[in-house]
Amino acid sequence: MKLLRVGTPGEERPAVRTEEGRLLDLSSVTSDIDGAFLASDGVERAREAVAAGSLPELDADGVRIGAPVARPGKIVCVGLNYRDHAAETGAAIPPRPVVFMKDPGTVVGPYDEVLIPRGSVKTDWEVEPAVVIGRRARYLDGPEAAWAVIAGYTISHDVSEREFQLEYSSQWDLGKSWETFNPLGPWLVTADEAGDPQDLGLHLSVNGVKRQNGHTGDMTFPVGHIVAYLSQYMVLEPADVINTGTPAGVALGLPGTPYFRPGDTVELSVDGLGAQRQTFGQA
Amino acid sequence: MKLLRVGTPGEERPAVRTEEGRLLDLSSVTSDIDGAFLASDGVERAREAVAAGSLPELDADGVRIGAPVARPGKIVCVGLNYRDHAAETGAAIPPRPVVFMKDPGTVVGPYDEVLIPRGSVKTDWEVEPAVVIGRRARYLDGPEAAWAVIAGYTISHDVSEREFQLEYSSQWDLGKSWETFNPLGPWLVTADEAGDPQDLGLHLSVNGVKRQNGHTGDMTFPVGHIVAYLSQYMVLEPADVINTGTPAGVALGLPGTPYFRPGDTVELSVDGLGAQRQTFGQA
Repeated sequence: MKLLRVGTPGEERPAVRTEEGRLLDLSSVTSDIDGAFLASDGVERAREAVAAGSLPELDADGVRIGAPVARPGKIVCVGLNYRDHAAETGAAIPPRPVVFMKDPGTVVGPYDEVLIPRGSVKTDWEVEPAVVIGRRARYLDGPEAAWAVIAGYTISHDVSEREFQLEYSSQWDLGKSWETFNPLGPWLVTADEAGDPQDLGLHLSVNGVKRQNGHTGDMTFPVGHIVAYLSQYMVLEPADVINTGTPAGVALGLPGTPYFRPGDTVELSVDGLGAQRQTFGQA
Repeated sequence: MKLLRVGTPGEERPAVRTEEGRLLDLSSVTSDIDGAFLASDGVERAREAVAAGSLPELDADGVRIGAPVARPGKIVCVGLNYRDHAAETGAAIPPRPVVFMKDPGTVVGPYDEVLIPRGSVKTDWEVEPAVVIGRRARYLDGPEAAWAVIAGYTISHDVSEREFQLEYSSQWDLGKSWETFNPLGPWLVTADEAGDPQDLGLHLSVNGVKRQNGHTGDMTFPVGHIVAYLSQYMVLEPADVINTGTPAGVALGLPGTPYFRPGDTVELSVDGLGAQRQTFGQA
């Protein structure tokens, strides 16, 4: 099942996208797609409502798609999780997941404008599949226990300012947290429908030029490992988002590749999770 | 004015602490002390209600004190912000603030139990004054503009697991984010009452042995600078919390000093902001 949120920013309405691309209004089942919904078997209730044919159809024409979950409690990111991306940035393959965070206020919809920070000359792209947590996770026994706490997957654009991230201090969060720096969506694809998270192609192009073309099978730390690992060091709550890392092809890794400039357009997709498209403006 | 939240976890009631130590129930003014309250001149409304003598008194006997703000949207931390602490950890004085984040879900009350993570042998202390944001801050013009967005100050215990923070990867957030790792409070002391944030003594003792004894006048980056700096790289929202850094005296900096063990008690205070006391348990 594909869950989404549609409407103007801050006033999104929960919906289900059918296989034919129609939108069904989920407002009678929940006021929002958030932690409370996910923690209370909301996905099952939505599935039953769809099966019962009781949900009214929404007019999909021209509707804005928001992020598929209301403001997450936290966004946890795994860095350097693909060998080719570690290599292109000059970093070693890490022996443990490299974990950092970004401001959860950075989340916007998958087609919203992204703002380049003032003074920035190194705003960069990163296509990633994101995990959306559905159940509280604390000290999971191992990777196999992760499947019970994952609600599903979506696309995360982990926009990154490399000067702020890498040149201003040893800690990366500063270059990951400018407003609009985390387009999310278009859908929360439930885990049963998304299938094996290690069998997804990832694609990103800038102004029509292909820049990233990776595969989640190349992750150093696969999804189950990441979720179980994180749960040893922090409590994961429903609607928390985990950005699982990006493959090679970022501007940082290809000397001479221009970083984002105002007016640029980026398109990204993950197999089975849909596609995003953003244009860039100036903050 | 001193604002606080009292009652069982998750069901705290907003209150004002008078100069004589009485508690006044603020429920008639706001349902909680949170971003919406702070952004809507809530502090002024509370002040007027106190002046009008209209607030009923709460029984302060044995009441639990929670964190003084409901779950912050983010906790931003500044590392190595005191020369003596940078020196004791073997780090250089940073040319810019070192910025990292911790899971906002780590916030607990100032007298709540703190849990040592499983397998941890390096759970460490850090007394810090914290800034509570009262107005949205985006591209502040400079340090002087910070005063208009600061609601007030409170004590933050930035509990840190040094092995997870420093030995598992280059990024610190993993060692800062275990549940209960951010006792906050007891009060949100409004900026007018707290006075000059660069003139506060900081004190921490473990099992009665004094370990930290610093002064905010020794910060490399003072509060106004930190807030203005952060606003260039992320949008600060009402109820966001900034941990401004800790002075020397942590276990990491003193070889032979024992880290926290279950049963230990820590007491910390910041001049004018009250005191905290926690005992440690095992997760």
